[in-house]
Amino acid sequence: LADAGGAGGEGQRVMIIGGDGYCGWATALHLSKRGYEVCIVDSLVRRHMDLQLGSDTLTPISSIYERVAKWKELTGLEIKLYIGDICDYDFLVEAVKEFTPDACVHFGEQRSAPYSMIDQKHAVFTQTNNVMGTINTLYAIKDYAPECHLVKLGTMGEYGTPNIDIEEGFITITHNGRTDTLPYPKQGGSFYHLSKVHDSHNIHFATKAWNIACTDLNQGVVYGVKTEETIMDPVLMNRMDYDGVFGTALNRFVVQTAVGHPMTVYGKGGQTRGYLDIRDTVRCLELAIANPAQRGEMRVFNQFTEMWSVNQLSEIISTAGAKIGLTPEVINVPNPRTELEEHYYNAKNTSLLKLGLEPHLLGDEIVETLLSFAVEYKDRVDYKAIMPAVDWKARKESVKA
Amino acid sequence: LADAGGAGGEGQRVMIIGGDGYCGWATALHLSKRGYEVCIVDSLVRRHMDLQLGSDTLTPISSIYERVAKWKELTGLEIKLYIGDICDYDFLVEAVKEFTPDACVHFGEQRSAPYSMIDQKHAVFTQTNNVMGTINTLYAIKDYAPECHLVKLGTMGEYGTPNIDIEEGFITITHNGRTDTLPYPKQGGSFYHLSKVHDSHNIHFATKAWNIACTDLNQGVVYGVKTEETIMDPVLMNRMDYDGVFGTALNRFVVQTAVGHPMTVYGKGGQTRGYLDIRDTVRCLELAIANPAQRGEMRVFNQFTEMWSVNQLSEIISTAGAKIGLTPEVINVPNPRTELEEHYYNAKNTSLLKLGLEPHLLGDEIVETLLSFAVEYKDRVDYKAIMPAVDWKARKESVKA
Ligand SMILES: NC(=O)c1ccc[n+]([C@@H]2O[C@H](COP(=O)([O-])OP(=O)(O)OC[C@H]3O[C@@H](n4cnc5c(N)ncnc54)[C@H](O)[C@@H]3O)[C@@H](O)[C@H]2O)c1
Ligand SMILES: NC(=O)c1ccc[n+]([C@@H]2O[C@H](COP(=O)([O-])OP(=O)(O)OC[C@H]3O[C@@H](n4cnc5c(N)ncnc54)[C@H](O)[C@@H]3O)[C@@H](O)[C@H]2O)c1
Repeated sequence: LADAGGAGGEGQRVMIIGGDGYCGWATALHLSKRGYEVCIVDSLVRRHMDLQLGSDTLTPISSIYERVAKWKELTGLEIKLYIGDICDYDFLVEAVKEFTPDACVHFGEQRSAPYSMIDQKHAVFTQTNNVMGTINTLYAIKDYAPECHLVKLGTMGEYGTPNIDIEEGFITITHNGRTDTLPYPKQGGSFYHLSKVHDSHNIHFATKAWNIACTDLNQGVVYGVKTEETIMDPVLMNRMDYDGVFGTALNRFVVQTAVGHPMTVYGKGGQTRGYLDIRDTVRCLELAIANPAQRGEMRVFNQFTEMWSVNQLSEIISTAGAKIGLTPEVINVPNPRTELEEHYYNAKNTSLLKLGLEPHLLGDEIVETLLSFAVEYKDRVDYKAIMPAVDWKARKESVKA
Repeated sequence: LADAGGAGGEGQRVMIIGGDGYCGWATALHLSKRGYEVCIVDSLVRRHMDLQLGSDTLTPISSIYERVAKWKELTGLEIKLYIGDICDYDFLVEAVKEFTPDACVHFGEQRSAPYSMIDQKHAVFTQTNNVMGTINTLYAIKDYAPECHLVKLGTMGEYGTPNIDIEEGFITITHNGRTDTLPYPKQGGSFYHLSKVHDSHNIHFATKAWNIACTDLNQGVVYGVKTEETIMDPVLMNRMDYDGVFGTALNRFVVQTAVGHPMTVYGKGGQTRGYLDIRDTVRCLELAIANPAQRGEMRVFNQFTEMWSVNQLSEIISTAGAKIGLTPEVINVPNPRTELEEHYYNAKNTSLLKLGLEPHLLGDEIVETLLSFAVEYKDRVDYKAIMPAVDWKARKESVKA
């Protein structure tokens, strides 16, 4: 195992697609600090979406130009910027040719399930942006950086909620007396989740056809906002989404509780998923890069540290909230999604632990920190944005039957 | 079982997307003859591709306007035309609202694996055209024709060549003592095949989320050109592709033998796939429509009648060719694809047989008919188009390692 604990990055060049986003920004700073030569590729489409939907991060965030300038000022470290859309293949190729990455971390996708379910246009945008962006990345690597290790963000949501244990990417099946190890069957629950399923299939093919090295990280739901680097200065602060479109469960519940709004549990609340702290996200990325996949290999890691049901999350937050003088409440709202509300869920996550991940577990301490943080910024909360905004099953017209 | 043998279509309205193509045209005429009210939706992009690549069908084909006019003249039956791209959602919605289909047969995709592997632009075109076209079709059905039965063409190539038996769409897996029936794991071998894998996942989700009825037909490689209806007049003649981009194995070998060119077997020739006669394609479509899926159900049928290796095909054609005085030859050319050349292959195809399909098997008679037909049109053969045209593994630049 490569020692990813020290300044393991010496001389390695890492391109971070989507480096202006929640996970990408924290990862860029973390790797830069560890000695990697980092560049960020980002179209800033996420900030544009926020403008269009009228949603905003709880925390005030600076522009990407201010962010990297402040980082340079504080640390002397340079993060090169390539502002553009990876669906524009010529732009991407120029960036890859100029930067010559040893590893390419790909966070740059539309990542909200509700956003992808708004209507036909948002579904098509999501799958075009994500699937074609990833095809372009694969082609750029094949043609211009064949030794580059692609580290691609997938999601645990690709697996859905099967009634059997979830393995890491592949499963060995014995059927009618014969055995093979095949891609784990996927059941994405939104056009967003499905875009990641498509990515995984395209990547699997490309690694074999073109001898590319790839690690596909099926990430759980990320919570938290502070990492060692983002707390160095307010200009480096990360985003924290809490609205009905971009807010993920734990962050959303924390903000709701901080402002005295009941936590909105969708349906029965038995939905169980994998979760992880943003500090573990950046560490997982570091581990994956320091211990690369082989060429021709698509290696899949499930990237989460704990499994929680929505009801368990709301209980944890209730307990922690009460301790710091808040009055947490829960309401069950009609589930806008198409999903099972009570189901078996048992997913493997041993690969990253074996590489040395030491999880930050979800305890009272972290939740209290998160809650206090949310209280600090509560004046910025838009109450209208807190309820679920998109109904999976909505129909455009009332037609026969 | 519904009787699909007579004029079962009485009053049923069937929209055929891709109805100007090889399978679509034959199916449109067949269903029209059986009493279905048929319309064709087609962008004619396939004819445009032929123009761009300089390839052409062996058989001279008339324009879609001449085709439907001749059909009206001969039978009195009307086939309505909607000329446009289903990726243009407004166009598709208008067609669906006006025609109000009871069933929608979706053939309208870019269907050549080599075409999808030409370069980045052709890969992105293929997945955009196919995946977004299918998403649009699903949305149009949800919003404007919720009771419409979608009959979607997939391909046997979605499964790849696993070392276990291939089931029809789903497989029951027992793992660590628990059991579930899950989508069959997919391993598409080109960006074209992968676009169909993506379609299947999107459709599976949409049937559950929106209560849509869908039959996904995983079709094998189709051969032959004549059906009962297309032989009624030269203006109704179907296309027959033999070139390195659009020609599928059996049709290609037939034309090569007819013009005295050796059959080009890729690599060792052990590649085994499912095959069917075009007369069975039209019958399968009729059976699927007459016995629709339930709402909320994605029903998957494997649509082929026999399994052959490439070597077996070339032997069958050699025997039949010699009988009619040709001198069939075989050459093994370097395999341009990424695929196993020797592998296990055993796929189920019982569902359509149970619905009443009586296969036309590949015997000397059919091959002889095909060969004579190819001899008839041999003056139209472009020898330059016969060899494989696209290398799966080609790199754009020579770069380090
Ligand atoms: N946040 C989570 O809980 C979570 C969970 C599982 C997986 N993931 C995955 O991790 C990745 C990052 O998620 P995030 O929460 O940081 O999202 P985010 O929206 O905060 O960041 C994504 C970034 O990618 C950029 N981007 C999107 N499309 C682009 C394109 N075509 N070209 C260039 N840049 C583009 C956006 O502008 C944005 O800055 C995503 O792929 C997401 O699916 C996130
Ligand atoms: N021919 C085979 O052996 C075979 C085997 C398995 C599956 N299939 C599937 O069956 C279907 C038909 O195949 P084919 O051989 O008839 O192909 P084809 O190319 O002859 O016909 C496809 C038709 O769809 C139209 N089309 C494509 N994209 C469109 C769009 N966006 N909007 C409107 N029209 C569009 C084309 O213009 C063309 O007329 C395809 O989906 C193909 O993948 C074919």
